[in-house]
Amino acid sequence: MNCILLPKNAKSICDKQQIRHIKEILKSKVGDSLIIGEMGGNIGRATIEQINNDEVVLGDIVLDIQPPAKLDLTVILALPRPKVLRRLIMDMTSLGVNKIIIVNSYRSQKSYWQSPLLERIDEFVFEGLQQAIDTVAPIIELKKLFKPFVEDEFPALLLDKTQGDAVIAHPYASQSWKSYLDTSTMPKIVCIGAEGGWIDYEVDLLCQHGCRAVSLGERILRTESVVSVLLGQWLKG
Amino acid sequence: MNCILLPKNAKSICDKQQIRHIKEILKSKVGDSLIIGEMGGNIGRATIEQINNDEVVLGDIVLDIQPPAKLDLTVILALPRPKVLRRLIMDMTSLGVNKIIIVNSYRSQKSYWQSPLLERIDEFVFEGLQQAIDTVAPIIELKKLFKPFVEDEFPALLLDKTQGDAVIAHPYASQSWKSYLDTSTMPKIVCIGAEGGWIDYEVDLLCQHGCRAVSLGERILRTESVVSVLLGQWLKG
Repeated sequence: MNCILLPKNAKSICDKQQIRHIKEILKSKVGDSLIIGEMGGNIGRATIEQINNDEVVLGDIVLDIQPPAKLDLTVILALPRPKVLRRLIMDMTSLGVNKIIIVNSYRSQKSYWQSPLLERIDEFVFEGLQQAIDTVAPIIELKKLFKPFVEDEFPALLLDKTQGDAVIAHPYASQSWKSYLDTSTMPKIVCIGAEGGWIDYEVDLLCQHGCRAVSLGERILRTESVVSVLLGQWLKG
Repeated sequence: MNCILLPKNAKSICDKQQIRHIKEILKSKVGDSLIIGEMGGNIGRATIEQINNDEVVLGDIVLDIQPPAKLDLTVILALPRPKVLRRLIMDMTSLGVNKIIIVNSYRSQKSYWQSPLLERIDEFVFEGLQQAIDTVAPIIELKKLFKPFVEDEFPALLLDKTQGDAVIAHPYASQSWKSYLDTSTMPKIVCIGAEGGWIDYEVDLLCQHGCRAVSLGERILRTESVVSVLLGQWLKG
């Protein structure tokens, strides 16, 4: 938690996790300054005026810094194990992905769609924003049916992205990421599989609809690592 | 587990996790082919001749493919929470880091050094190798004292690396990774902090001994994400 994200016009902090963070991790006291952000708005600072058990009252609130720019990027992610999903949503949010579409895939078990963690995606986004000092949540959509999504909705996504392509990360693709970049700009859509990757049918269907399969090298990485390796290619730091 | 890693000259698989993987995930049967690797040696294939409860007997073993090249890179990592360490060791191994030096830092709690997971690093390396289809373990060293390590051992590491620098990832560094790369080759040593990052004293001490602090951008990322984002910069795929 590198900033405390607050609702619009909040003058105090009432979230228990945030209060615990302020007391136990930051060990802040009255008079100390906090990095805060307004959900969907600016980033700035505030001074602690009072600390109670269930409220931290703020003063001198200044919100004068714009949140970091989002990446012009949509990630299409095959639904992974729910525990992994939490970290992936956090990381993709922290890395600044603009839109996340979670789709079913052959290797996404049916039980994953029933997980209570799916109801908590907003929390994971919130964690990711507070990690990265950002205030703007990515758009997140869930698509439980792979084939209708790819056939009916994916081509329209691609049509909007006239400046860039869609790529699918696939360890067995013949084209490498580096050779792809030799002739193309950074893609606007990347498709990333769950544990076990995409099956051939899925790769083929996406490629039939305009996606290009690229390999990230001969080493096969965990989904979590792939997400950061791939999105790190947009690093402007 | 994208390959089954075996001791030298093994003719059968006796490891319970590997047997479970073959039976339950791959659902392999007699006559099927498996991707195998010889610890420290080549990668190849074998045919399943028998499957018993506690042994899978192999035939037609061919080990004709060299493991992927390691990155010419040493990672100096501040000891993170033990649970996170497992995933980090796996990912650094999968990404092909040549040497990993785990050091104490101000934000590494003392209890982390007592964790039983520290005794299990070899297991996590093994998982990372099987994930990435590699057979060569990175060198791993533990340094419980930060200052003596930096003052007495770090300069010698740097001296060996005449072709490249050491960098420390630090979100508050004034130089960015991209501007660093404008004038330098890829570094041979990268220092990555645990949760909460390095404190100023640590950054300063490393920089006094030849390290350069670089920022990966305005977004502050989790340690796990930083490791993959940063090591992904070596992507040759």
